[in-house]
Amino acid sequence: MSEKKGDLISYRPDIKLLDATIRDGGLVNDFYFSDEFVKQLYLTNVKAGIEYMEFGYKASKDLFDVNKFGKWKFCDEESIREVVGDNDTDLKLSVMADVGRCDFKNDIIPSKDSVIDLVRIATYTYQMPGALEMIEHCHEMGYETTVNIMAISAASEEDIDKSLELVCNSPVDGIYLVDSYGSLYPEEVRELTLKYCKAAEACGKKVGVHMHNNQQLAFANTIESIAYGASFADATMSGMGRGAGNCFMEQMLSFLRNPNYKLSPVLKFIEKYITEEREKGSVWGYDLPYMMTGALNLHPRAAIAFKKENRTDYQTLYQELLS
Amino acid sequence: MSEKKGDLISYRPDIKLLDATIRDGGLVNDFYFSDEFVKQLYLTNVKAGIEYMEFGYKASKDLFDVNKFGKWKFCDEESIREVVGDNDTDLKLSVMADVGRCDFKNDIIPSKDSVIDLVRIATYTYQMPGALEMIEHCHEMGYETTVNIMAISAASEEDIDKSLELVCNSPVDGIYLVDSYGSLYPEEVRELTLKYCKAAEACGKKVGVHMHNNQQLAFANTIESIAYGASFADATMSGMGRGAGNCFMEQMLSFLRNPNYKLSPVLKFIEKYITEEREKGSVWGYDLPYMMTGALNLHPRAAIAFKKENRTDYQTLYQELLS
Repeated sequence: MSEKKGDLISYRPDIKLLDATIRDGGLVNDFYFSDEFVKQLYLTNVKAGIEYMEFGYKASKDLFDVNKFGKWKFCDEESIREVVGDNDTDLKLSVMADVGRCDFKNDIIPSKDSVIDLVRIATYTYQMPGALEMIEHCHEMGYETTVNIMAISAASEEDIDKSLELVCNSPVDGIYLVDSYGSLYPEEVRELTLKYCKAAEACGKKVGVHMHNNQQLAFANTIESIAYGASFADATMSGMGRGAGNCFMEQMLSFLRNPNYKLSPVLKFIEKYITEEREKGSVWGYDLPYMMTGALNLHPRAAIAFKKENRTDYQTLYQELLS
Repeated sequence: MSEKKGDLISYRPDIKLLDATIRDGGLVNDFYFSDEFVKQLYLTNVKAGIEYMEFGYKASKDLFDVNKFGKWKFCDEESIREVVGDNDTDLKLSVMADVGRCDFKNDIIPSKDSVIDLVRIATYTYQMPGALEMIEHCHEMGYETTVNIMAISAASEEDIDKSLELVCNSPVDGIYLVDSYGSLYPEEVRELTLKYCKAAEACGKKVGVHMHNNQQLAFANTIESIAYGASFADATMSGMGRGAGNCFMEQMLSFLRNPNYKLSPVLKFIEKYITEEREKGSVWGYDLPYMMTGALNLHPRAAIAFKKENRTDYQTLYQELLS
């Protein structure tokens, strides 16, 4: 464990932040953000020196009803352009595409016709052939691409190794270490980061990290992963995201020493827009039910249902999760 | 950094948990807990297999007005006995005594006449001679003792080294690594733990850890410190404690593999008593102002005042803290 990179005083220029507030936060409010929220978030990210902003999913309109979700579930080119124009800024724009839930052959147009810079392909290990097909397509269309291999805490080491081998032989630019259940501990994140970096570096790719806050470890795990070699870090404003939420962007900006990063615009955004979003009824963040599913390495769905039903019988939930 | 101890499957019998809910949580409600809360907490700790419970401070009644604080600021022998009788259980009882705020020569009676097992002496580095005097007294009275060296993130390395040397030559049983401002990152905690353990092991003492949650790192830092050799870990129910609060006991019980530990009694306690405590108006836990003081390595007092005044102008606070 001596492969630590960087220190607490200087900065590594390879580290890039990705704001995933709309995409992961959209799972909290079915992507119904106000236009003002999205516009101000975009302007905030530009001012704060954040490198990437993710607008949402490229979800199939055959599979999902456009009347049941806000526009950021689909991220039409026009929707993004209404916010960013031609995006004449240094901020790069991304969308996420889930394997099996995206009509990528129709909906991912050539990058020269799009304001999108990066397409992030989210996949389970068992969907890897579908992911490789999407990576290939997006790469050919001219996009920067990453692959986000989900739920690895529930995958075998053999499946992780095989998945890494496959994506290393693809044209993907970045490989994301994803703690979908918020169940990984920092010492596991260090080992996994070293594994991912070893595989990625051998083929000239970067490693990214996407953590959940079920055990109040999203920030700790993100900075550990960075310290051991990850370059891309996902975060959201005040951790907005499904269930326990994500790594907090304001914490990343406090922690990283890159002088391009500015905390103040983010504080201003939170003060008004995150407060309003919570007042609207959007609920996320660490809570005991999420801690339990995280610690037990389970999908958070039982915890989300428990919260939705306004239950507080924690001890009963724990017995239910164990059985 | 290869001195990791233990793993995620087995357990180390040297690890002991200390419930500091009344003592650190008392800083939130001026020690006004209901008798039922304290009694049920005691019974919960016994059932959960927790090794130590801290009742509060041994504060001087000359310095502090007994009419302005609940009884756990003073921890009279009779107050504790009203809850525990003769404490015919495996749970050991502790109190904290601050250097300069405790009439220890009068108030720390011989241990054979007390239900208290452990006296924890809290000191800043610049109070070390006073701490040594108290350690000596409590040791002579027959107590187990620890020394909690506070605010080390604001002390020089030389002062920390000298303090460690002094306490290593005292009869103290345990030396606590304390992150008073919630400003330490896991990589710093690992280095400090190795330093503390090296000093402590050379003289047959144990190391303890007490972390604050300003940067959502209390749990991460506690388990990192344990992984690198600390034996005693402080935690509180749902993290109850001043400002951002502490490491969550329920998380420690989920994480540690000692089969003596039981999570269910703690969940039941939280369900009723922590919920009631919050409804009473006690406020603690991670929030943006505490993150700022933690990240800037400052005492949380400005953040506490900001919260008390119901301010939400985070950007202004940040500028105030920087100036």
